[in-house]
Amino acid sequence: MKHYEEAKLKEILAPASGDMSAEDFRRVGHEIIDWIADYSENIERFPVLSPVEPDWLKDNLPKSAPENGEDFARVLRDVDKLILPAVTHWNHPNFHGLFSTSVSAAGIFGELLSAAFDMKAMLWRTSPASTELEEVTTDWLRQMMNLDAGYKGIIYDTASVSTLHAIAAAREGLDLKIREFGMSGRRDLPLLRVYTSEQSHSSVEKAVLLLGLGQKSLVKIPTNERFEMDAEKLRAAIEADKRNGCVPFCVVATVGTTSTASVDPVAEIVPVCEEHALWLHVDAAYAGSAAIVPEFQPLFKGCERADSLVTNPHKWLFTPFDLSVLFCRHTDLLKRAFALVPEYLKTDEAVTNQMDYGIQLGRRFRALKLWFVIRYFGQSGLIERIREHCRLAKLLAHWIEKSDDWELVAPVNFALVCFRACPKTIENLDALNEKIMNEINASGEAYLSHTKLNDKYTLRLSIGNIRVEERHIEKVWNLLNENLASAAEKRSAAL
Amino acid sequence: MKHYEEAKLKEILAPASGDMSAEDFRRVGHEIIDWIADYSENIERFPVLSPVEPDWLKDNLPKSAPENGEDFARVLRDVDKLILPAVTHWNHPNFHGLFSTSVSAAGIFGELLSAAFDMKAMLWRTSPASTELEEVTTDWLRQMMNLDAGYKGIIYDTASVSTLHAIAAAREGLDLKIREFGMSGRRDLPLLRVYTSEQSHSSVEKAVLLLGLGQKSLVKIPTNERFEMDAEKLRAAIEADKRNGCVPFCVVATVGTTSTASVDPVAEIVPVCEEHALWLHVDAAYAGSAAIVPEFQPLFKGCERADSLVTNPHKWLFTPFDLSVLFCRHTDLLKRAFALVPEYLKTDEAVTNQMDYGIQLGRRFRALKLWFVIRYFGQSGLIERIREHCRLAKLLAHWIEKSDDWELVAPVNFALVCFRACPKTIENLDALNEKIMNEINASGEAYLSHTKLNDKYTLRLSIGNIRVEERHIEKVWNLLNENLASAAEKRSAAL
Repeated sequence: MKHYEEAKLKEILAPASGDMSAEDFRRVGHEIIDWIADYSENIERFPVLSPVEPDWLKDNLPKSAPENGEDFARVLRDVDKLILPAVTHWNHPNFHGLFSTSVSAAGIFGELLSAAFDMKAMLWRTSPASTELEEVTTDWLRQMMNLDAGYKGIIYDTASVSTLHAIAAAREGLDLKIREFGMSGRRDLPLLRVYTSEQSHSSVEKAVLLLGLGQKSLVKIPTNERFEMDAEKLRAAIEADKRNGCVPFCVVATVGTTSTASVDPVAEIVPVCEEHALWLHVDAAYAGSAAIVPEFQPLFKGCERADSLVTNPHKWLFTPFDLSVLFCRHTDLLKRAFALVPEYLKTDEAVTNQMDYGIQLGRRFRALKLWFVIRYFGQSGLIERIREHCRLAKLLAHWIEKSDDWELVAPVNFALVCFRACPKTIENLDALNEKIMNEINASGEAYLSHTKLNDKYTLRLSIGNIRVEERHIEKVWNLLNENLASAAEKRSAAL
Repeated sequence: MKHYEEAKLKEILAPASGDMSAEDFRRVGHEIIDWIADYSENIERFPVLSPVEPDWLKDNLPKSAPENGEDFARVLRDVDKLILPAVTHWNHPNFHGLFSTSVSAAGIFGELLSAAFDMKAMLWRTSPASTELEEVTTDWLRQMMNLDAGYKGIIYDTASVSTLHAIAAAREGLDLKIREFGMSGRRDLPLLRVYTSEQSHSSVEKAVLLLGLGQKSLVKIPTNERFEMDAEKLRAAIEADKRNGCVPFCVVATVGTTSTASVDPVAEIVPVCEEHALWLHVDAAYAGSAAIVPEFQPLFKGCERADSLVTNPHKWLFTPFDLSVLFCRHTDLLKRAFALVPEYLKTDEAVTNQMDYGIQLGRRFRALKLWFVIRYFGQSGLIERIREHCRLAKLLAHWIEKSDDWELVAPVNFALVCFRACPKTIENLDALNEKIMNEINASGEAYLSHTKLNDKYTLRLSIGNIRVEERHIEKVWNLLNENLASAAEKRSAAL
């Protein structure tokens, strides 16, 4: 890989006023584009997890900002020398931890152009392109996911923020004048309640905390042996709360939980919510992208009757972080919860001003990168890639099932496999699996993460990289078996 | 300006699997870099405000996503044909509306590389570079702003979100178990109160709404004739509330308000907050950058004793949107308000995991662009540019003061001028000024915005573009006078 140290980039100093000359911009820009091309081509030569110790980068940087501008060529050399070693390579095809994500070239170009425009889409007039392209691309995505036209898409930064907005809008739908009078100092306000499964993402609880509802407001419904919310237990909890004078107002179901990619039975949850007039929000941050693949549609049954649904193209649609889409049926409630227009932002136009739909006033021009990605790959190109990831996950699951030394710990719904080593010769399986994971991660060859399922330490292997191939899954399968063999060997040597 | 239509870029189609080839990435990347260079060089040839009518872009785009991938060269041609006309050019030196912001080449490059890495800084281990560079660059900025070492910097997306986090941490500091029990269904919880001036940004009220405190919790303190919060009235309001059994817990002061860039007397507000043990948050989203200029330091007096302060390098430090820095003395409280660690994110390392400090779990690698900008310009380069913007604002203010036809409506503290036409021959000055502004904005030559001060329709002219020169301010001054003359002429013709 070409490093800047070797590249001998001509000296580039900041001018006394204004910005870098167009000529220098071109030269440096081309260098960086080439650097990224090299980086992408050679990404498998890097350790997946950065091998640096904590504080390594901090200790290697000056304690204070430079008094005078530095040669930009030197800054780029420091990217090689100081930044690169401290990067965990999310784009490495053997990054299988958390959720495997990756960017595409088209997505990077979208981000680049959007940075150059640097629009803040608060008002339509400050950014017609961003406002309208957001409407168009999210509607494309809605159709691709087979969601009905009642859903309007709004782009936020992360699923945490999308879910926060959904619950805030649900709260606004209550006839309790919380916008005007708030929740403190009110003797008339009963305990409000939100329901989610014990497998749901921490963002649900974080949102409930931020909204001032508190942990007491969040009821975690038990899941079945497939880690899916039990709709009957949900109904029972709601009914008990109502009898006790609480006010249930929102249910957050998950299609594709973070631990296991399990799927709550949305079609069974919908009638419970309808019966009790609760807002149903579906967290499909990870798995939503799979809704574009026809054979996965059955897993989204019921979503057509939810009130809102979040999906993150930055997770599994090859779009740079951050881009989360909230589909919502009640944008009027979002607006009621968030609109506040000071004089300096008043305009006469009868248009959509995106600042009215969220906590953030300005919004980046995020739709551009999504537009680039969808056009470059087309629906069929995106479907094929996601389908292939799911095929690879099934393949790995098949190898695991065939083996006596390994077992699946959860069903494989999408492209996440939860499994663990279970050789009969070793007793402490939790310690064994943790050891195997840590050794693979420390090797730099691959990155896996873990979870606990039924109190069992469980390995998670997520497949979602745009460049992942069968050989990468074979590689990690071999690593797993080698590390298991070596652990077993050490154990028998110790006996 | 070179358009893609003329450029005849070779056909670039998505491969059957994987991503764009490195060769194509280089070719397209270089094209886009050249396009941005051309765009920046020719930006003054574009109308500042996009001239398109609402729905123009939407009407010109297909209603659904393409079934098959498209030639990426065609996508780029559509950037010229469809996106560019719908862009409001925030980087145009005559963008004087709202706050004038702009990106630098170094900032764009930072965003580009960060998109290529696509790290999600939730855990230190998933992004050591982002976690540590954030700590280092925000500490550089802290020193540049002459804030003491008690402040720790955290990067969020926008000032709205930074302020939201500050108030959430302040609430967490109350001994009222709101995290555990929330605010609903509690007969023991008195009315909580937050104080800010009637000139403060709408984000303060939005944060209060989202937090579930409601409008009733927010007390807007009157301002003096310079639009500054009256510290004595603040004290009186707090004391009256306490007598009435309310619980005051937070004051948001502003250094550089949005309407007029007025400066609340932080040094007078500090003792009030200390006396009553309230959290003092300073909103310096806009003006914070000016704290790096020694002669502006007096305007920040007292900030060294606040609990938190927000400044936005994406506003006035040539960094692409979004990058907001919250300086906070009590990160323990932020952590107490937000930390929630599910099993799949548990790690053993004794490190900072940034997900613990906010609502968002993942964070973009934003520090990179700030690091690029500070190193390329150096402290002195940044100081000179901001100083020059303030000089140009004073110059315009001087022209206004010398003229019989115009008047200043607020003091000029930084690089924002609030003024209006006040010819003796015309009675309805509000209508006159609105007409002058609308005609200039419609001409595409410049973009001004407005506010209302003491019920007077007031023009706002903000100067903050990295390429702005004296000639741009002369140009807008001429436009103002020409439009005033033409309005006066039409009026006398009508008589």
